Amino acid sequence: MSYFNEVNAVQYEGTQSTNPFSFKHYNPKEKLGDKTLEEHLRFSVAYWHTFTADGSDPFGAGNMERPWNHLQGMDLAKARVEAAFEIFEKLDVPYFCFHDVDVAPEGSTLGETNRNLDEIISMIKDYMKTSKTKLLWNTANMFTHSRFVHGAASTNNADVYAYAAAKVKKGLEIGQELGSENYVFWGGREGYETLLNTDLKLELDNLGRFYHMALDYAKEIGYTGQFLIEPKPKEPTKHQYDYDVASSLAFLERYNLSNDFKFNIEANHATLAGHTFEHELRYARVNGMLGSVDANQGDTLLGWDTDEFPTDLYSTTLAMYEILKNGGLGKGGLNFDAKVRRGSFKPDDLLHAHIAGMDSFAIGLKVAHKLLEDGVLEEFIENRYSSFSEGIGKKIVDGDTNFHLLEEHALSLGEIENQSGRMEWLKSVLNQYLLSVNVPVGMK
Amino acid sequence: MSYFNEVNAVQYEGTQSTNPFSFKHYNPKEKLGDKTLEEHLRFSVAYWHTFTADGSDPFGAGNMERPWNHLQGMDLAKARVEAAFEIFEKLDVPYFCFHDVDVAPEGSTLGETNRNLDEIISMIKDYMKTSKTKLLWNTANMFTHSRFVHGAASTNNADVYAYAAAKVKKGLEIGQELGSENYVFWGGREGYETLLNTDLKLELDNLGRFYHMALDYAKEIGYTGQFLIEPKPKEPTKHQYDYDVASSLAFLERYNLSNDFKFNIEANHATLAGHTFEHELRYARVNGMLGSVDANQGDTLLGWDTDEFPTDLYSTTLAMYEILKNGGLGKGGLNFDAKVRRGSFKPDDLLHAHIAGMDSFAIGLKVAHKLLEDGVLEEFIENRYSSFSEGIGKKIVDGDTNFHLLEEHALSLGEIENQSGRMEWLKSVLNQYLLSVNVPVGMK
Amino acid sequence: MSYFNEVNAVQYEGTQSTNPFSFKHYNPKEKLGDKTLEEHLRFSVAYWHTFTADGSDPFGAGNMERPWNHLQGMDLAKARVEAAFEIFEKLDVPYFCFHDVDVAPEGSTLGETNRNLDEIISMIKDYMKTSKTKLLWNTANMFTHSRFVHGAASTNNADVYAYAAAKVKKGLEIGQELGSENYVFWGGREGYETLLNTDLKLELDNLGRFYHMALDYAKEIGYTGQFLIEPKPKEPTKHQYDYDVASSLAFLERYNLSNDFKFNIEANHATLAGHTFEHELRYARVNGMLGSVDANQGDTLLGWDTDEFPTDLYSTTLAMYEILKNGGLGKGGLNFDAKVRRGSFKPDDLLHAHIAGMDSFAIGLKVAHKLLEDGVLEEFIENRYSSFSEGIGKKIVDGDTNFHLLEEHALSLGEIENQSGRMEWLKSVLNQYLLSVNVPVGMK
Amino acid sequence: MSYFNEVNAVQYEGTQSTNPFSFKHYNPKEKLGDKTLEEHLRFSVAYWHTFTADGSDPFGAGNMERPWNHLQGMDLAKARVEAAFEIFEKLDVPYFCFHDVDVAPEGSTLGETNRNLDEIISMIKDYMKTSKTKLLWNTANMFTHSRFVHGAASTNNADVYAYAAAKVKKGLEIGQELGSENYVFWGGREGYETLLNTDLKLELDNLGRFYHMALDYAKEIGYTGQFLIEPKPKEPTKHQYDYDVASSLAFLERYNLSNDFKFNIEANHATLAGHTFEHELRYARVNGMLGSVDANQGDTLLGWDTDEFPTDLYSTTLAMYEILKNGGLGKGGLNFDAKVRRGSFKPDDLLHAHIAGMDSFAIGLKVAHKLLEDGVLEEFIENRYSSFSEGIGKKIVDGDTNFHLLEEHALSLGEIENQSGRMEWLKSVLNQYLLSVNVPVGMK
Repeated sequence: MSYFNEVNAVQYEGTQSTNPFSFKHYNPKEKLGDKTLEEHLRFSVAYWHTFTADGSDPFGAGNMERPWNHLQGMDLAKARVEAAFEIFEKLDVPYFCFHDVDVAPEGSTLGETNRNLDEIISMIKDYMKTSKTKLLWNTANMFTHSRFVHGAASTNNADVYAYAAAKVKKGLEIGQELGSENYVFWGGREGYETLLNTDLKLELDNLGRFYHMALDYAKEIGYTGQFLIEPKPKEPTKHQYDYDVASSLAFLERYNLSNDFKFNIEANHATLAGHTFEHELRYARVNGMLGSVDANQGDTLLGWDTDEFPTDLYSTTLAMYEILKNGGLGKGGLNFDAKVRRGSFKPDDLLHAHIAGMDSFAIGLKVAHKLLEDGVLEEFIENRYSSFSEGIGKKIVDGDTNFHLLEEHALSLGEIENQSGRMEWLKSVLNQYLLSVNVPVGMK
Repeated sequence: MSYFNEVNAVQYEGTQSTNPFSFKHYNPKEKLGDKTLEEHLRFSVAYWHTFTADGSDPFGAGNMERPWNHLQGMDLAKARVEAAFEIFEKLDVPYFCFHDVDVAPEGSTLGETNRNLDEIISMIKDYMKTSKTKLLWNTANMFTHSRFVHGAASTNNADVYAYAAAKVKKGLEIGQELGSENYVFWGGREGYETLLNTDLKLELDNLGRFYHMALDYAKEIGYTGQFLIEPKPKEPTKHQYDYDVASSLAFLERYNLSNDFKFNIEANHATLAGHTFEHELRYARVNGMLGSVDANQGDTLLGWDTDEFPTDLYSTTLAMYEILKNGGLGKGGLNFDAKVRRGSFKPDDLLHAHIAGMDSFAIGLKVAHKLLEDGVLEEFIENRYSSFSEGIGKKIVDGDTNFHLLEEHALSLGEIENQSGRMEWLKSVLNQYLLSVNVPVGMK
Repeated sequence: MSYFNEVNAVQYEGTQSTNPFSFKHYNPKEKLGDKTLEEHLRFSVAYWHTFTADGSDPFGAGNMERPWNHLQGMDLAKARVEAAFEIFEKLDVPYFCFHDVDVAPEGSTLGETNRNLDEIISMIKDYMKTSKTKLLWNTANMFTHSRFVHGAASTNNADVYAYAAAKVKKGLEIGQELGSENYVFWGGREGYETLLNTDLKLELDNLGRFYHMALDYAKEIGYTGQFLIEPKPKEPTKHQYDYDVASSLAFLERYNLSNDFKFNIEANHATLAGHTFEHELRYARVNGMLGSVDANQGDTLLGWDTDEFPTDLYSTTLAMYEILKNGGLGKGGLNFDAKVRRGSFKPDDLLHAHIAGMDSFAIGLKVAHKLLEDGVLEEFIENRYSSFSEGIGKKIVDGDTNFHLLEEHALSLGEIENQSGRMEWLKSVLNQYLLSVNVPVGMK
Repeated sequence: MSYFNEVNAVQYEGTQSTNPFSFKHYNPKEKLGDKTLEEHLRFSVAYWHTFTADGSDPFGAGNMERPWNHLQGMDLAKARVEAAFEIFEKLDVPYFCFHDVDVAPEGSTLGETNRNLDEIISMIKDYMKTSKTKLLWNTANMFTHSRFVHGAASTNNADVYAYAAAKVKKGLEIGQELGSENYVFWGGREGYETLLNTDLKLELDNLGRFYHMALDYAKEIGYTGQFLIEPKPKEPTKHQYDYDVASSLAFLERYNLSNDFKFNIEANHATLAGHTFEHELRYARVNGMLGSVDANQGDTLLGWDTDEFPTDLYSTTLAMYEILKNGGLGKGGLNFDAKVRRGSFKPDDLLHAHIAGMDSFAIGLKVAHKLLEDGVLEEFIENRYSSFSEGIGKKIVDGDTNFHLLEEHALSLGEIENQSGRMEWLKSVLNQYLLSVNVPVGMK
């Protein structure tokens, strides 16, 4: 059966196409350097936003028009699996991601929940046999249910901690069963509302212990996926422990976990933390910690996580620049942790949104690739830092100097000459590259 | 003599040019619709950022390398005039703008200050005889000097109020002398630091009286320029009275001034107030209050006025869309109230920055013009609101109904059907239009 | 029957009390000046947060433990009425507020919804006969249901507009039936998500027409309550039309409505708009537009509406200072538009939270009253602006001068002397007053 | 000679005093627990804000009225030293802090600068012989001079790096000469403006090398002060490397420096990074990294570093709570990195401001001490986390469990019961404690 039978498979039709249900830029099989676009971009559909979100917000009830709205319980869960693989195929995406509660309803006990999961996972596994779409990552939702009101691995309640452990254990087993490439931890309520009632040290220590036990269990069962932490600064809690990449790195270092984790970086979480998306990617990259990406965008004039589909070409270009410099995403991918706006409640909008996001990242990839091929920024930067390639600069980099020698050098200097950083010219060049990916279109 | 003799006049060389000192998109004589690009865009150079700013910031001393740095007093002032008209000519801009203190040094008395001004204004007038560049607007700086520490027209000190009046009086006379098209009020310190020491009502009343006296004087001397208020929410004061366009409109309405003023809208001030640039333009436009534009951009992740040169093509496109819908800027223009970054301290950077800004707005104009020509958004919007063109909707718009009839209509309805707002598709279309202004370039 | 039988009526027990279920500062019958604390403060319980909110947030399911959780439909609605009047009595509050959907479930048609409302309103009316608690204001919820996805009175859909009109019509009838002192408009989705699909002018015009029809209907039925608009800048929409008090005032002025409306000012909405709570109160007060108050507080480090119970004594003091300067709240009140944190999910927390809020405003009132009695700020301000009481300053205030005379005055001045604003000293004084309301307690 | 002869030494006069030039709460010799207030609070005056700041801001010229305004060069520097020790004595503060450029003017060469420094440092040393005021910390200003436009230890220019090293070398020597208790690194321009021109990895590596060389040199000369890093997220640069405590900790860990550094935490920097002051203190404390405090406050509605004198008693209370829990500040202190508002330009305001700050922290100390003595929060927290003291919880904390055992436990559970976090009650208690430090005053 079909849930979206009014739309055929979305095809690449080129920049001149006026068909809204076509890709104008994302041609999966097109080669760019030594990889195809599909291999570069490793797109993934997020199960939760696309198949379970209902459009509710703090001031509004659910309003999404979905062909499965009349169903409930396991019937609903199964319909969503069917619909999901239909969408995966129509969009021709290589990956998808899910939380446990996205795919199967919670039962009245943990045992029943696990049995529900088993049934659906088995169904998903069957679908995956004939689908090209693989599991980028899965995770356990440890924030929606009221039991997690005070956190999961950083809760004040040992029973809740145990429950969370059981969920992650199950999640790792599911990941192994479905061959997931990564396992993600997003600390939904791992944080605090007020320091007045919080034992910060105990909570962080327990969180560290939790990750170590997860690693132990993964090793025990031979799970080979990559472990990822997804930073977010605030929301739902007042302060989340995994505030940003740097904060999370400090935690991993302190708890001796930095060799076993990388980061899943989300654009909207970056801006909520006061950083650009590209900053978080760069910081992770130079520290060898760039694992995967939640490809969305926020609205910097709004103070909450809007999880919009990515359409800002500056952002997609600078993100892809970092990813290319990283040698690609490895086991990671570009997961659309993005939801259609509440006002875009028709089933068609799901396709419009994914097309917008996939085309926007394909454009970003092409611009970034051309920038790198021409080496414009690289050449500018190499020249800018050239004083560290010789003389006293080289000694500094080689660790072959000290404060005595540096002072001696400084005392010998006349007025120091600096170069311009030329930020305005660089931004102008970026625009020139952005506009060069296309030829004029006549849309109407 | 020449201050920038290493650079020739900046020419339009087209999108394929790799000459950094050329326009790739801004071809002033190119026709778009019934106007040339120059007529559409009405670019203006801001005297203060380009000829007087020294690069100092709250944590750093001046660092801009300028050919006039060795001069002082009136010699400095004159050198700047010479340099200014050289830059105006090299950039071929039709307008410039200044504050009184930008062009002439303050004397030890108001009388001496005015005599300094007279001398420089006379020199500027001479230059203008042979230059194409006209005065878009002038204004009085009523915030830098320590006398204005508690405000100017909203001060607690009647002497300061009188002093401010004298400055605006002189400013109107200068505007008339030089044929300025507008007079701008930016309320630098018209606001408060703390309500604990502030008589808000008296300050607002005095501000209203000040504007009425300014109008009276303009009428008296036959000044025909347009009066503009430039909103800004905060900085330097904790709260500025002209917070944003809506706040300023409320003030103008309350003090019976709305027929005699329009707004000078600055992009960076918009975002500091929590609005998009295009929101402020739209809100002013639909209220018939769009006067002129300070064309710059901010950084929404920073909390102060960075006054960057505009390079964000989304912003320039949506701004030009509003301006075209407004039927153009009338007496207003696009003034680059923008400064090179402190790290861009070489004289060349002044040209790079203006080229970046002018090309970015030229691109925005072309994209917006094409969007309007094709009527994509207009058609979508017309369809979206079509229910107000007939039946009960038409009655609402015509003022031909009431709560009784509306309730009757509502009671007769079954489930109400809404359309999708299709925001993701619209953003995708915007990208398609943005990328259509150009053909591929090979930059190296 | 009792829903909160483990707690007795909350009594004033004074500052030394260690009983968590007592007021330490709010003694309703205590006289301060010519009014009792109850008359000054006019506290109101918000029906929605206290009786219908379930604790859900964008990342979490409902978790509030409430004695009525097992009920549904009209049974639930009735239980809530019973519980509400029990709480009103235990807290001894003079007022409450509600949206239509808070008190009665929506039916499958507007007619059925209205019949549900009639039944519950009748029940409430009966309770009110024997209760001291009156209706401060009611309103219509025009944002939760999916039909309002694109707004209510600013929708693109004429049917929705009619539906909204019918709801407000019913709301006014209910208000009249129950003797409400005010009718509030909070424009939940009166705003836009993106300008790309929005006819701003038509939406604002329709909004203006809507308010005029509401006024007409109120007049027709003889409704005598005060009409209030409640500004909020963003959330749920990207941009709300009633952004802040000044924006809303501009709208009212433009649409000739400013004589018939005042503002309901919410602390958390003020800070989301970039203002202090006291700024919004002051601005409304000096423009004669201060109507009522939503007494809560936000977290300025978070970007969404947290609607916390007010406990910040600086905020309550400065708010009460404005209210006392306004001669009180008139028909308005202090409505706790505040919700217990999701982590405070026990029924007891409802009482803790209201006690915290009521005591905090009682303290604020006492501090503000003492500040005014001593005239500390008034004297400072009078002295600070004294230059406007004589000479040229008096002429300015009397409108008895012009730019010629002011320039003449300015030319005659030597160096202008300014006074210090003394903000640090004023803040120190504020602290001294704050700490003076109490005597030492030994809490344990 | 005296610079402030109109004011005598500021004395503790108690809460009833109406003398603005007295402490109402700070009684330095009063014992609280086992320390005097002076020993607890370790107040320090910041040389730069109090003796060199002129009141200029990005929109205004200097306006501070200071008795040394007529002097220049070394004469000015000497007058400031005299004035400084007069203020130290009148305020009776135990500490002060400075940057190199605060105390002595820069010469035309590094050699001349160092000679200027030597002369002034010698003068300061003489004053210190007879003064109780000691040097809390000194540092090198590596951000004001134009040579540092692209950073100091993270510059792209090796000469600048050497120059910075020479300055820190001199700073350590000065610190040793004057017996400073700490040496502080605030990375004024250690950050970037745009990633487009930045080699992030090289800059961070060089920064790491710089700190190691500083440590080596300190060891070499036997300098025993504590090394501190002062985090700040942005301003002056777009992104500062020492964004917040967690980011800085990640850096220290990565570069193997965490055992040799602690943090100097500034309230206003905390809020600019999106954290509360107490969060940064707590996070540093539980990681054993709390070194010293820059005691000021920001305005969370403004986006830049306002460096206000601290008067918010919530903030001072929660800060002192963390400091008491830390067992005090060790070698650190409470340094007033705070400036009088530009509107508070009279010499008297310097005293008002310090009195406000010192009284506010004294009050905070008293409230925090009483809170701890009564153990209210401790008892609540102990109870809240009690599940980790026994059974499965104890096993978790003891590292004596794994995912198998935890799953087994979880499967055995019925519905999990959580406690309320009771945030509203806790905030109410905090208010009760705050109001208990004082008795009523009659200010007039």
